[in-house]
Amino acid sequence: MSQIPYKIYLSEEELPKAWYNLRADMKNKPAPLLNPETHQPMTAEELKVVFCDELVRQELDETTPYVEIPQEIRDFYKMYRPAPLIRAYCLEKKLGTPAKIYYKFEGNNTSGSHKLNSAIAQAYYAKQQGLKGVTTETGAGQWGTALSMACSYFDLDCKVFMVKCSYEQKPFRREVMRTYGASVTPSPSMDTEVGRRILEKHPGTSGSLGCAISEAVEVAGKTEGYRYVLGSVMNQVMLHQSVIGLETKTALDKYGVKADIVIGCAGGGSNLGGLIAPFMGEKLRGEADYRIIAVEPTSCPSFTRGVFAYDYCDTGMVCPLQKMYTLGSGFIPAPNHAGGLRYHGMSSTLSQLYDDGLMEAVSVSQTEVFEAAEYFARIEGILPAPESSHAIKVAIDEAKKCIETGEEKTIVFGLTGTGYFDMYAYEKFHNGVMENYSPTEEELAKGREGLPTV
Amino acid sequence: MSQIPYKIYLSEEELPKAWYNLRADMKNKPAPLLNPETHQPMTAEELKVVFCDELVRQELDETTPYVEIPQEIRDFYKMYRPAPLIRAYCLEKKLGTPAKIYYKFEGNNTSGSHKLNSAIAQAYYAKQQGLKGVTTETGAGQWGTALSMACSYFDLDCKVFMVKCSYEQKPFRREVMRTYGASVTPSPSMDTEVGRRILEKHPGTSGSLGCAISEAVEVAGKTEGYRYVLGSVMNQVMLHQSVIGLETKTALDKYGVKADIVIGCAGGGSNLGGLIAPFMGEKLRGEADYRIIAVEPTSCPSFTRGVFAYDYCDTGMVCPLQKMYTLGSGFIPAPNHAGGLRYHGMSSTLSQLYDDGLMEAVSVSQTEVFEAAEYFARIEGILPAPESSHAIKVAIDEAKKCIETGEEKTIVFGLTGTGYFDMYAYEKFHNGVMENYSPTEEELAKGREGLPTV
Repeated sequence: MSQIPYKIYLSEEELPKAWYNLRADMKNKPAPLLNPETHQPMTAEELKVVFCDELVRQELDETTPYVEIPQEIRDFYKMYRPAPLIRAYCLEKKLGTPAKIYYKFEGNNTSGSHKLNSAIAQAYYAKQQGLKGVTTETGAGQWGTALSMACSYFDLDCKVFMVKCSYEQKPFRREVMRTYGASVTPSPSMDTEVGRRILEKHPGTSGSLGCAISEAVEVAGKTEGYRYVLGSVMNQVMLHQSVIGLETKTALDKYGVKADIVIGCAGGGSNLGGLIAPFMGEKLRGEADYRIIAVEPTSCPSFTRGVFAYDYCDTGMVCPLQKMYTLGSGFIPAPNHAGGLRYHGMSSTLSQLYDDGLMEAVSVSQTEVFEAAEYFARIEGILPAPESSHAIKVAIDEAKKCIETGEEKTIVFGLTGTGYFDMYAYEKFHNGVMENYSPTEEELAKGREGLPTV
Repeated sequence: MSQIPYKIYLSEEELPKAWYNLRADMKNKPAPLLNPETHQPMTAEELKVVFCDELVRQELDETTPYVEIPQEIRDFYKMYRPAPLIRAYCLEKKLGTPAKIYYKFEGNNTSGSHKLNSAIAQAYYAKQQGLKGVTTETGAGQWGTALSMACSYFDLDCKVFMVKCSYEQKPFRREVMRTYGASVTPSPSMDTEVGRRILEKHPGTSGSLGCAISEAVEVAGKTEGYRYVLGSVMNQVMLHQSVIGLETKTALDKYGVKADIVIGCAGGGSNLGGLIAPFMGEKLRGEADYRIIAVEPTSCPSFTRGVFAYDYCDTGMVCPLQKMYTLGSGFIPAPNHAGGLRYHGMSSTLSQLYDDGLMEAVSVSQTEVFEAAEYFARIEGILPAPESSHAIKVAIDEAKKCIETGEEKTIVFGLTGTGYFDMYAYEKFHNGVMENYSPTEEELAKGREGLPTV
């Protein structure tokens, strides 16, 4: 076996030609989406009002294990993929751990994260269907940037509703989206019914992801030739993001490396679902075993402190109900929390796997995440996004355990992106004014109040 | 010959093991550095007061063609190199040009540019010499970030003097440097004699690179165990940056591709000198011919409107005199100019080559640079730094000429970095408030007034 390089880059020929649909190997399938009014399973026809036709097909397809990646998408992937699988030699040495640490780095593209993997797919299907444009929401801004890039490539219009506090705190993110020709509206806005309703009820609100989703869905529904697209939670997104895990697995296999632990940060689940897909697939088929760990912030602990129930995906309650680990669509994460991972719910696929005991979840506090981020940046060079740093923190913890036990475990984690647009949060950390937050039991109970009775 | 992929990544084994010293192949060597007081050639002993011993040796070595890259530096390079050589298939298609366009992308590291290539080398030699720390200046912030990363890796203290207007306009750059443990001082500052003198003479000045250099040199000279390092202009920097060109050449050779035109942006010359090194070497040795084009901003046109003369490198006139194309150290580039490339002078090696007619130079205006940048971002995905976009503009111009002539020329340009920390400039461009600027003849004459008589 040849020496493992610092960075494993697959050749173009080795890139995945099909996405992997994890649901095909799940015995317990994720519960179906329900119509928010009738509480009956959503039909394809109903979903097609909101989503592109092919994406609806992908959303509902629980049986096809591999879905071919269209050539146009594969060509686009070639512009920024393969993402390197990096052997963290320097980190291992600094820690003095016998563990072997690898991370899949998805930050080498202008969107700064893995989000582009699904954005380009969704834009492609929208174009194929002859649509004029798409609408979406963005929180920290990575998804909005990714979609702007994808729409620019296929010459589609792109309307982004950006959570107001991010719109104001991250003017440069907004400017990147404008560079790619997208229109960016702070949410809640006066452009939609739901936005006007929320502004009336909560004047001066800084917005939320749930609210921005409702606005984007409303505009898509009302505008001829538009559909709504989104960057996480949905099964279609998990499908596209499987490219992360497939590349990772191919790179490890190429060097005869077997992972022991796979770690990813979890907001809505897009990166985690993509990264773990082929590993979880082997686990489901009984071919191999892995410890799989989801890492979430203590301030928004869907897995570790949420309930497994049907819930609304958005504040306006216009989206289908999903059965998922949720804090309730009324739960509002602490405003001082930096970056993404602020969504109240979680991918229904991942929720089902977690409920079936096939993966673990841990929550970590904000300051320990930034400590890990800075430590990692100084050793491995890459300045990580706050979201990604949740996975770094737990990977380091696991590597430290190996020092005690002497075990040479192979740890693989997902480094979803870079923190170049999160320096405001780093500044707070440097200045010692970053606070940690865990919701109280009362706050969690309040969040669950609005759960629908299904 | 196999199909050329979108991105050519060399393997670790193919990475350069030695830097290439272009001066060894130059018949007309660059003129020697002069002592600013005596106007006699600087001796190694004199230079060692300011620079690390080994770097002085490299600075003065005109005859050794290859300098081995120490293993520790090669290990660090492996963390972020090879930089990909990207075939701009999408750009070619969009332009409809028969030209083949390649670009060497140096932005896939946290410093966001090629500057890290020399920063790590300089930090390494400082560490080898047993120094405690280094001082430097930074303008746009890329060099300061790169040096912070390098010093953090070798556990060296790093004091950065950041041009005040950048310090204020780019707080996030400053925060990245702090993440790597550097101290960042806005320049001019009250910490140095030269800073106090300048502030007294020009209260409220927004600073300049020349002034920040003087401050950094002064502090290095006064502080036990410190030396000054810098990110461009010097021969040692050209040497380290040759890694860019060497990788580029190896990647092209691997696929049997012969470049016709090599294009790079030029501020102090660090990227341009590195990129063109092996191509110019072949040209000097009569082995091959290339058109080599330096691109500079109309607002700071050292090559195209400067004079070839000995000049001061810094405002405080404490650095050695260099013979170079210069606008005069008293020349002040338009404050509205975005990004780097604002230095009044130019690498003496490149100046000599230009004076010998071995390369061309063109200047381009700010708005046409940003038009090219946005066009490129939408097609190739990467959001380029304003500096890099100067090269993009001219590469596109050359590719368009090929449409007219039908020539299938191979164009290679250097994409030195990303523009993530330049969104303020992009915003001005989007809002239509970006202005172009060319100095008048009177302004140029005024800049030349302070030229020393040598």
